[in-house]
This record gives sequence, C-alpha cells and structure tokens, in this order.
Amino acid sequence: MITEIARIEIHPGHENMFEEAVAEALPLFLAADGCDGVDLHRSVEPPTRYRLMVRWETLEHHTVAFRGSQDFARWRALAGPHFAAPPQVEHVRSVHAPCRRRPGPPHGPGPPLSSRRHRTVIAPSAQNGRPSPRAAVARPRRR
Amino acid sequence: MITEIARIEIHPGHENMFEEAVAEALPLFLAADGCDGVDLHRSVEPPTRYRLMVRWETLEHHTVAFRGSQDFARWRALAGPHFAAPPQVEHVRSVHAPCRRRPGPPHGPGPPLSSRRHRTVIAPSAQNGRPSPRAAVARPRRR
Repeated sequence: MITEIARIEIHPGHENMFEEAVAEALPLFLAADGCDGVDLHRSVEPPTRYRLMVRWETLEHHTVAFRGSQDFARWRALAGPHFAAPPQVEHVRSVHAPCRRRPGPPHGPGPPLSSRRHRTVIAPSAQNGRPSPRAAVARPRRR
Repeated sequence: MITEIARIEIHPGHENMFEEAVAEALPLFLAADGCDGVDLHRSVEPPTRYRLMVRWETLEHHTVAFRGSQDFARWRALAGPHFAAPPQVEHVRSVHAPCRRRPGPPHGPGPPLSSRRHRTVIAPSAQNGRPSPRAAVARPRRR
C-alpha cells in the first residue's frame, strides 16, 4: 500500500471553492482502480496549504493508471484553477503497522474511551493569567 | 483532531537504526496525553526521507504538553542522532470525513474485497515489450 501525499498551495480566498472542488472530485478518486481512500487535510500554518492524501494499492496505480486517465484531467479541471503553484507530490509506505492508543492503561482495562477523553484539565500556567482558553493542556498520565 | 506531520531527513545508511529508534519511542507518544496514534511512513523518493504522523486531540497537546515533557526529550535522544536536519513539522486538520472506497460498485453489492483486489491486469503496453513487471497497471473499471 502506497500513500500519495500532495502538498497543494492555493490562492488566498479560494479555500471554500477549493474544498468544494475536492468534494466534487472525490468520486473520481474512489472510482479509480487501486484507490483505497482519499482524505483532504488543511494546514494550520499556513491555512492556504492543503495536504491531499490518497491511498493506492501500488505506485503505478497512481503514477501510470490514474494520471493517464480522463478522471485525472477532470480532477485537475475542477481543482487546478485554485492552485497557486503546481502540487508537490511524494509517495510513502507505512513502516510499522498503524499504531493506535489503546482505550485503557497497559495493565488494566481502564475507563472507557469516552471518559478518558475528558480527563483534560487546565494546566496551572493557564489558570494563572494566560490569555487563551486554548492553552488548556492535559495532565500527563504517566511520568 | 490535529495531525502532526513531521518531515524527517536522516543520514544515508541510518534507515534501520532510525526505524528501530522510532519503534522504541512509540510508547512515549502513545503514553502522551491527547495522543491518539502515531504512524511512520518512509518516502519512495528519496528513501532517506520519512514522515512521522501523530494524531493529537488539540494542537496544544503536541506543542505545549508533549514538547515540554521529559518523553519528548527521550524521543529526541533516541531518534535525533539519525536526523540529517531538524525535522520540518506542520499541523493539519481533516476537512472532510475520511473517505474510503466501498467494497462494491455504486449500484450493487459487487464482488468481495478479496476478489476485487485481484482484478488488476497487465496493460497492453506492458505486454508489448516493456521490461518491468511493475508496469502492470489496472484496467479502469468505469470510463
């Protein structure tokens, strides 16, 4: 399995139009042979940068089959007008099996995920005059 | 949910040592409050580039809590000797819900996933003298 990671810089102000274009183009990717899924992510820094991640069975399913298809031309016709520069594309392979946090601590069943996710507390530094409520951070569980 | 994407360039020849260091460091990430999972990917072009992707509940779980922790120092002590340059880190948010291909075609149950995945055929150009068996590409299912 290969993941294509495309870095896409768009024109400022085109964010909504670009996201709508990607939503319209999603079926083109999902119909492509060898495509297992696609996700669009928006960068925090800067917000005009996006990361399109597409999972392919093989490198050639992307670089040969999809790029040579009419659906690739349709994708570029939809999204291309919003590009501020040509996308920078790389391909990666997973090294380890996907590594997810288990719901409980290592040596016991622990609380359910829903309650674990609400253990976040306000750090002392945030309570002492830091301006943003986003400074809320979590108490380390094991140190 | 935030995904940290770190681009890590390592010294040539350090690939195995770096991957072992990351495997050893995985529990540090998974023990960090607000961390929901971590995956290491290796670039195809070039193979000395890696992408470490870590999912955090909030930006501050990474940038404040984890970076200020002793486990961050342990992570850097394990992996840092293999870095050829400081990692380049960005944070992204998912724009759409994760988009996966469905097992069957849009208007019917279709074949099971195991048989669908074996519909790949050798493209005519590959049968006519192209040297690499990796030139095998899939026949488009819908055009």
